[in-house]
Amino acid sequence: MNNPSTLDALIEALRCLPGVGPKSAQRMAYHLLQYDREGAARLSTALATALAQVRHCRLCNSFTEDEVCRLCRSGTRDASTLCVVEMPADLMMMEQTQIYRGMYFVLMGRLSPLDGVGPRELHLERLLKRVEDGQVREVLLATNFTAEGEATAHYIGELLKGRGLRVTRIARGVPVGGELEYTDAGTLAQAILERRELS
Amino acid sequence: MNNPSTLDALIEALRCLPGVGPKSAQRMAYHLLQYDREGAARLSTALATALAQVRHCRLCNSFTEDEVCRLCRSGTRDASTLCVVEMPADLMMMEQTQIYRGMYFVLMGRLSPLDGVGPRELHLERLLKRVEDGQVREVLLATNFTAEGEATAHYIGELLKGRGLRVTRIARGVPVGGELEYTDAGTLAQAILERRELS
Repeated sequence: MNNPSTLDALIEALRCLPGVGPKSAQRMAYHLLQYDREGAARLSTALATALAQVRHCRLCNSFTEDEVCRLCRSGTRDASTLCVVEMPADLMMMEQTQIYRGMYFVLMGRLSPLDGVGPRELHLERLLKRVEDGQVREVLLATNFTAEGEATAHYIGELLKGRGLRVTRIARGVPVGGELEYTDAGTLAQAILERRELS
Repeated sequence: MNNPSTLDALIEALRCLPGVGPKSAQRMAYHLLQYDREGAARLSTALATALAQVRHCRLCNSFTEDEVCRLCRSGTRDASTLCVVEMPADLMMMEQTQIYRGMYFVLMGRLSPLDGVGPRELHLERLLKRVEDGQVREVLLATNFTAEGEATAHYIGELLKGRGLRVTRIARGVPVGGELEYTDAGTLAQAILERRELS
């Protein structure tokens, strides 16, 4: 290589970003050093600051700068419902619906035995501790409808059985605005199986 | 947004990377904070170090930590030939051929009027100064065979005319190992136009 060693070190360091291989890392490094030194400096600082300040909320496990995050601290939420999601991005999607007014627990992942992520790596004992606060009466499982998300929901469901809690799962079915002709057969099959009485 | 502000700042800062939009930036930030804090710390340091130490070689304009880079300092290269490439990655490809033994000039870009990159932004005056060192006798244009790379080669060719220099362009044609049946017509047309005598 004809790169100076600090440049090689930067290219190597950029590969910690998910989805960034050697070619993109090189392209990114050249771009930053040539066209956006200001952005690179900002990124360096933002990384250091976030590392120093961001931690997990003691209650919901999401990212926060405090011991307990703003949402968990807010007195206006329904403390009797706890929604379990995989990632903070899912929490944000739930909030955008403006329908759900309960609390959250963010798994920060999903069960994925192939990647070595089991119940221990997900720290499910923290979820168990969380639901035993005396206020939670319903756990709404809102993990993804992927194979891994489904397995995670199933596992947590089994875990919470017999604790006097209502355990629910968000509904599967034809998307709002969806046309049957363009819905995949698996989704439509589920929508039939999970059909409900007209109210 | 329910993200703490330092996390939002990190997501925003990651968008300085080329090809990274809001969704990937969010995914990257979550990944780093959750699974790779060590990598993030390394990246933060690598960015700061590279910004502090990497600059442009006074002779070839490529990235280096010194005033003149290792290749330009090496006494073993042929100082009479100067190869003009767009980016350091192109220089590395040229070196990998082990055929070229001359010097380089790295444009750090290409003429691209639509992106606001003209002769002034490319600092072509530095190239002009470089070829007047009394040693360079041939300038080999090795910009890409894209529309912009071709325009850049043409522009530099015109610029260097009448200075008593030999100005050459790397050959276009059917790739080594290429089969005519699977070569695109444009490439084959050029290979015909640029045919040469069998030696």
